[in-house]
Amino acid sequence: MQQVVQLLDQVEVKTLTDQLLHEYCVARGNDARKMDERYALLWDAIQSLLLAGGKRFRPFMLLLAYSSYAQTDDKEAIYPAVVAQEILHAAVLMHDDIIDRDIVRYGVKNIAGQYETSYATYLSDEHERRHFAMSSAILAGDILLSDAHRLLWRLDRSPEVIRKADEILSRAVFEVIGGELFDTEATILPVGSLSPTVIARYKTASYSFVSPLSMGAALAAADEKEITLLEQFSEYVGIGYQLRDDLLGVFGNTAQTGKSTSSDITEGKRTLLIEQFDEIASQEQKADFYALFHNPTITNEELERAKQLLVEAGARKKIEDTIEDLKAKALTIVSLLAIPDASRSAFKTLIDTCLSREV
Amino acid sequence: MQQVVQLLDQVEVKTLTDQLLHEYCVARGNDARKMDERYALLWDAIQSLLLAGGKRFRPFMLLLAYSSYAQTDDKEAIYPAVVAQEILHAAVLMHDDIIDRDIVRYGVKNIAGQYETSYATYLSDEHERRHFAMSSAILAGDILLSDAHRLLWRLDRSPEVIRKADEILSRAVFEVIGGELFDTEATILPVGSLSPTVIARYKTASYSFVSPLSMGAALAAADEKEITLLEQFSEYVGIGYQLRDDLLGVFGNTAQTGKSTSSDITEGKRTLLIEQFDEIASQEQKADFYALFHNPTITNEELERAKQLLVEAGARKKIEDTIEDLKAKALTIVSLLAIPDASRSAFKTLIDTCLSREV
Repeated sequence: MQQVVQLLDQVEVKTLTDQLLHEYCVARGNDARKMDERYALLWDAIQSLLLAGGKRFRPFMLLLAYSSYAQTDDKEAIYPAVVAQEILHAAVLMHDDIIDRDIVRYGVKNIAGQYETSYATYLSDEHERRHFAMSSAILAGDILLSDAHRLLWRLDRSPEVIRKADEILSRAVFEVIGGELFDTEATILPVGSLSPTVIARYKTASYSFVSPLSMGAALAAADEKEITLLEQFSEYVGIGYQLRDDLLGVFGNTAQTGKSTSSDITEGKRTLLIEQFDEIASQEQKADFYALFHNPTITNEELERAKQLLVEAGARKKIEDTIEDLKAKALTIVSLLAIPDASRSAFKTLIDTCLSREV
Repeated sequence: MQQVVQLLDQVEVKTLTDQLLHEYCVARGNDARKMDERYALLWDAIQSLLLAGGKRFRPFMLLLAYSSYAQTDDKEAIYPAVVAQEILHAAVLMHDDIIDRDIVRYGVKNIAGQYETSYATYLSDEHERRHFAMSSAILAGDILLSDAHRLLWRLDRSPEVIRKADEILSRAVFEVIGGELFDTEATILPVGSLSPTVIARYKTASYSFVSPLSMGAALAAADEKEITLLEQFSEYVGIGYQLRDDLLGVFGNTAQTGKSTSSDITEGKRTLLIEQFDEIASQEQKADFYALFHNPTITNEELERAKQLLVEAGARKKIEDTIEDLKAKALTIVSLLAIPDASRSAFKTLIDTCLSREV
């Protein structure tokens, strides 16, 4: 097969996405200013957060899938979908931050964080200030969520294709909202009420992998069969990504990943790794482990002992095997896809990026 | 002009809308159950709230506009828009309740209220319970907002018409989010930072009047000129509705309206009535009034004195005159619309319902 659309690398996608998001925010800020300057200020906050960080991984996958199937070199035609994917992601993060009561994202103040500062002049009570700041963040997420749908109409594509893109987006929203609910409730319901695999699938795999890849292919008018294969690929890579993330959260190299290797254990996060441990550990191992788990004041030595128990019980190995298994399955799918060689290589690199990050 | 589609009265619209919302919630509940029972429970909460109340005023206006222009008797074709209008309204209310920290709506527990009860088993801390209950309500509003867009694709209409309907919906969302922001910030920013007229226009008139009427007409493929007239009509009636509401909040008959006639004054709500008072009252009247305004502990006598000052300064009269003026303008537009006689009568009744509610 011929590669009609040149593949972009991650750096190129980041530059492109930043530019598109900038244009989007400026345009919306202008719409808002016509109503009242206060609304334009919300768009300033949205813009500064959207451009403060983000690997633009979803646009990268969208463009990869599109470039793999497109028969015309017109990447520009799908730019609205690049923005839609990224603002859906931002909306999810904004509301996730409210639920998690976080005011920092990408190392800078998120929407609520920015508003806490700007409301400080008017509200001396810390609790009130936080409430109103969070309220602004609810509204910011709302408008981005709605705009993700709206932008799909800007696609230079047939109504049938736009309809398909909106179906993909709508399914992603439906699933990520469920995933957010599960993830939140997992922290308050009795252990075992919600499966970490189900959470990973709906909170992460769906909108972060399935949606960008299948939308990219759909916008290139790829066969339904190809889209189905990509969906399956996305589930494997998405779940594998979460598994790897869970391993890195315990056994990773903090200097490399920037991720704490203690908080998952001290905060008692019920990851897929812990679920695996529960399945295969002996009663004694469980007793030892849970005496240390979910305790913010344990010593370094105790932390290491907890990690050792995860290894001894075979949980770490089991997760690593599962990742290898998912990787093999994803590779098989890549070999089945009717795409040009350069795209096939890029898909293989994608698997490596997501599943073989160094523990 | 011929009336092709039979007009429904408010009772008929309520019955129809309740039925459609019931079917929608059951279908979504089933989708959710395939993911996990916990998500189905969120849909149970959504369903019980959606069916607990609501005058179905937006569906009524949507169907009125549609029936006024439709050339084929196929009301069923636009039922997805009935649901879309109503779930957008519900999403707005859900997030508005979070911002207002309310847990009751239509006299029953709203989403957060229901979740506070169900989380009581797991969370003993009241503050934590409230936070997680509010989080569920954020997610409930999110999925309804996204689904409002998705449902428009179910319309049995051409892609051009669906695109127009989505434009109308998207504009309504953009404006109501701004309106919510203004309304919220008006309570914390210095007096005069945000005009009550601007708030009324964007928080109320846009999604509650402009969107249902113009979408109904667009779905019937009415001329652009007619849609523009309806937009103008909606602004007049929407602002007038808010003005009347402000009057009822001070001078109304609580037994008739179910609305308190003290809270606007004791809570210091800066309504259009108060804005008007500020413009025309003397310095002395202002000094007297603001000594009583925004004070939850004033006596009945003082409350009556505050109301009297609004009358003496001419603010009440001025608002009543403005409503009469808006009513006349709305009637003029109705006389210009190219619609059948029965529809014209219904539009006139609509004006009366919204603008002539007894003070």
